[in-house]
Amino acid sequence: MEEYTARMISLDQIRQARKQIAGMAIRTPLLPLKFHDRPETYLKCENLQRGGAFKIRGAYNKISRLKEPRGVVAFSSGNHAQAVALASRELGIAATIVMLNQSVPQKLKQTRAYGAEVILGGETSQEIQERAEAIAAEREWVIIPPFDDPEIIAGQGTVGMEILEDLPGVKSVVAPIGGGGLCSGIVCAIKQTHPEIKVFGVEPEGAPKMLESMRAGKLITLPPTKTIADGLKPVRAGKLTFEIVSKLIDNIVTVDDEAILDAARHLVWMEKLVVEPSGAATFAAVRSGKITLPEGPAAIVVSGGNADLGRMLGFPAE
Amino acid sequence: MEEYTARMISLDQIRQARKQIAGMAIRTPLLPLKFHDRPETYLKCENLQRGGAFKIRGAYNKISRLKEPRGVVAFSSGNHAQAVALASRELGIAATIVMLNQSVPQKLKQTRAYGAEVILGGETSQEIQERAEAIAAEREWVIIPPFDDPEIIAGQGTVGMEILEDLPGVKSVVAPIGGGGLCSGIVCAIKQTHPEIKVFGVEPEGAPKMLESMRAGKLITLPPTKTIADGLKPVRAGKLTFEIVSKLIDNIVTVDDEAILDAARHLVWMEKLVVEPSGAATFAAVRSGKITLPEGPAAIVVSGGNADLGRMLGFPAE
Repeated sequence: MEEYTARMISLDQIRQARKQIAGMAIRTPLLPLKFHDRPETYLKCENLQRGGAFKIRGAYNKISRLKEPRGVVAFSSGNHAQAVALASRELGIAATIVMLNQSVPQKLKQTRAYGAEVILGGETSQEIQERAEAIAAEREWVIIPPFDDPEIIAGQGTVGMEILEDLPGVKSVVAPIGGGGLCSGIVCAIKQTHPEIKVFGVEPEGAPKMLESMRAGKLITLPPTKTIADGLKPVRAGKLTFEIVSKLIDNIVTVDDEAILDAARHLVWMEKLVVEPSGAATFAAVRSGKITLPEGPAAIVVSGGNADLGRMLGFPAE
Repeated sequence: MEEYTARMISLDQIRQARKQIAGMAIRTPLLPLKFHDRPETYLKCENLQRGGAFKIRGAYNKISRLKEPRGVVAFSSGNHAQAVALASRELGIAATIVMLNQSVPQKLKQTRAYGAEVILGGETSQEIQERAEAIAAEREWVIIPPFDDPEIIAGQGTVGMEILEDLPGVKSVVAPIGGGGLCSGIVCAIKQTHPEIKVFGVEPEGAPKMLESMRAGKLITLPPTKTIADGLKPVRAGKLTFEIVSKLIDNIVTVDDEAILDAARHLVWMEKLVVEPSGAATFAAVRSGKITLPEGPAAIVVSGGNADLGRMLGFPAE
């Protein structure tokens, strides 16, 4: 346990993040699943968060603490982009976002709508990262990393703290893993006070960067990943997120695109929530039986709602 | 004021309804509007209610108080149908629902999924009512009216009570008017304790049965109505709902189908909530400027989410 202690995100850091983002981030509702056999199963609805995803928590926590920045730069598949654009606008700071060429149109449009400059910078997360770093160096702007940063992780950890408060007696939490920022924050918030609560991580079958790193015992980079869950697509977890998740998580499972789509459609049609595939991966893992939740109250984190709905719902094919 | 006193629904009736439906109805969240200039504007999300609409509140309150019924019969354009089907299933009571021939497919499907017998009984609310009454008489089953009933109204009134608790200092509430059950319940809950809170009613331009009755000073029946908001389509309000609403409401406005569709799409794309046109009419009235809310916290009731999403969002045309 001692080995990693210095690299944990403390409860104090998460509590401070909570104060910092109050008034900006919404305390999202924890809604009971209506069409699911298991009792006491709740969705933590970050799809209803400002910016349409949990990302504003970390981004605002980070950006609002910068000392007179000239501007900020981010690279993102989409939801972090919107969060940085939104947080920067609120704070009156210039923002440039380098996004993937194949970003979901809804995410591109929304990021521009928040007033950020958007640059389509490549096909892979590595390409857009390099482009963003070049811009930041040239302009002397600050890079806002999508996940591998203590303030970003502390911000996302506020999700875990809210679950603990809103669902007393919670016995398990299910979180998605893209780069690992959200999952890291949640395990830090939960395991440091309630080590007995089970925390499950979920990755797409086509992008199991955290699971494979844990199996290898070190941070590895996957070959190009493929999944409908664009927010969970990174080929590599963060150094810090890998340390935290590998140390504290109870289990990581993977789900295929079919299960993700099925879960996402179910959440739209039956639960009346607009979710994106990345946001439905956790519920997919429960719905498909990949995760068997222990008895008692369970919280499933729905991370975002910025979906290409027509494609996701199968229009006009259906 | 004295004239109608006996016909009001009392706070006690609403409080009793609340106890009766606890455990069945969800205490739906009151969510801040994210993409709207006005601060402190909240949506009361009955689209996230069990059965996909507020209707379960009244239906369960009514059906669960019946003394050993042989079965129940309802006539409905859709959401009341689902609520009666769902409540009956929970209570182990047989249910037959007479629905409009042109009911939204999603609503038909869902009503059947809750285990009720569904009969397509005509083109107008009057036709399905007559058919339902014939069935009830023949079988000696109990009719569960969609809105014009004290226990139904008391059940819907729990929405108003929750708003008062969850939004202290609320200055205005906006409720849709179909037959007037929800609006009646809400004004009863609010005006008897907080007469200073403004309550606005919203009807579709194509079905202004309450507004026209108030103008006529008596309950009138409209010629066949036409609106995309199928849940707000009745040609006639109830006797009791007319008495209550005409006495207590501050103002009723109408919105056209274009404004309703625009509002519904906005709620889906931007606020990430699946709503149906009838559920978006209230927000349409605010968004289009038909209602000018007084300063201070406002609650807009989104009554349901059982939408024909493809059609509503304009797929595959877009």
